[in-house]
Amino acid sequence: VELKQDNNPLPALLKHLGKLPGVGPRSARRIALHLLKKKESVLYPLLTALDNAAQQIQTCAECGNLDTYNPCPVCTDAKRQTQQLCVVADVADLWALERSSSFRGLYHVLGGTLSAMDGVTPDQLRIDTLLERVVRHKTDEVILALNATVDGQTTAHYIAEKLAPLQIKTTRLAFGIPLGGELDYLDEGTVSTALAARQLMV
Amino acid sequence: VELKQDNNPLPALLKHLGKLPGVGPRSARRIALHLLKKKESVLYPLLTALDNAAQQIQTCAECGNLDTYNPCPVCTDAKRQTQQLCVVADVADLWALERSSSFRGLYHVLGGTLSAMDGVTPDQLRIDTLLERVVRHKTDEVILALNATVDGQTTAHYIAEKLAPLQIKTTRLAFGIPLGGELDYLDEGTVSTALAARQLMV
Repeated sequence: VELKQDNNPLPALLKHLGKLPGVGPRSARRIALHLLKKKESVLYPLLTALDNAAQQIQTCAECGNLDTYNPCPVCTDAKRQTQQLCVVADVADLWALERSSSFRGLYHVLGGTLSAMDGVTPDQLRIDTLLERVVRHKTDEVILALNATVDGQTTAHYIAEKLAPLQIKTTRLAFGIPLGGELDYLDEGTVSTALAARQLMV
Repeated sequence: VELKQDNNPLPALLKHLGKLPGVGPRSARRIALHLLKKKESVLYPLLTALDNAAQQIQTCAECGNLDTYNPCPVCTDAKRQTQQLCVVADVADLWALERSSSFRGLYHVLGGTLSAMDGVTPDQLRIDTLLERVVRHKTDEVILALNATVDGQTTAHYIAEKLAPLQIKTTRLAFGIPLGGELDYLDEGTVSTALAARQLMV
């Protein structure tokens, strides 16, 4: 039985599934069983989708987005305003902004945020290429769309300082109460920030 | 842009990931990004593991377990007591019992439980093969290791009735307080069942 276990691809599958974000040992077992019980309808289509994605999706050398095209469709879209540059930490944030359909400029994906805790330093982020693009595109405005966390805001301030000598308008997302947010459930920081940034009702 | 989106393997990957148990649209995005950012260290090993599993893992025709061998190593293990048969709803339950290392007999995977809600009827479960195996193995005892849910216990009673004419000892798992369980956090049903089934301390 020991020998058989060594040859068994199941532990390998469980190990690799268990490494995915948000998937623990128990979810890995559930997913593996689901896949193996439905090979035709679930496992093979997933295999094909993963294989296609592996072969075709690449990082946009311009903005850092992930797409089948390099440069990506956002960078090559002639209708977008090339003088507005929205800086995001991660591709997921770019997608979140695209889903909101509220931004028609270009993006720049940093590839993370500065973090003393995780030892992320400026040279590990795509900050040099950001400065290079800002000059090349003659950017009017850099929007720092970073998370409202300590690391996100540290990164925003670091980039704002780097941009200061170039005298480019640099903005950040508004802080406040999220739509549908209930005061009773929000943290004090959000409530006091929203109060400080209160706006006139016309 | 419309044409490009149609050819994009990303939506396909997100769709297939999002169909996995416990994975919603947001986790699917997180997993897809994680995979695409780490092709060499995460995506390719997962692809290989899935491919190996797809090719090599099959359902044991005897007990319903999933393994590279058919019949599976549990069924062919000469050291196991072939006259004890443990009935489980799912392969995950078989694995849970194997992890507990407390059972040395054979298993029988039903492939689900009877459910009025989900329209699962006896002919959709491996009950016929259970009865056939019980006769063939000259089984001494059938242990119904089914979930302590309405569906699990309905299934247990249905099978017990089917086994009654064969006059085979039929048991079920004990109900009671789980190890580490705190009375204050347990539901009333568990507490009253544990009280009714109280045991003498020697």
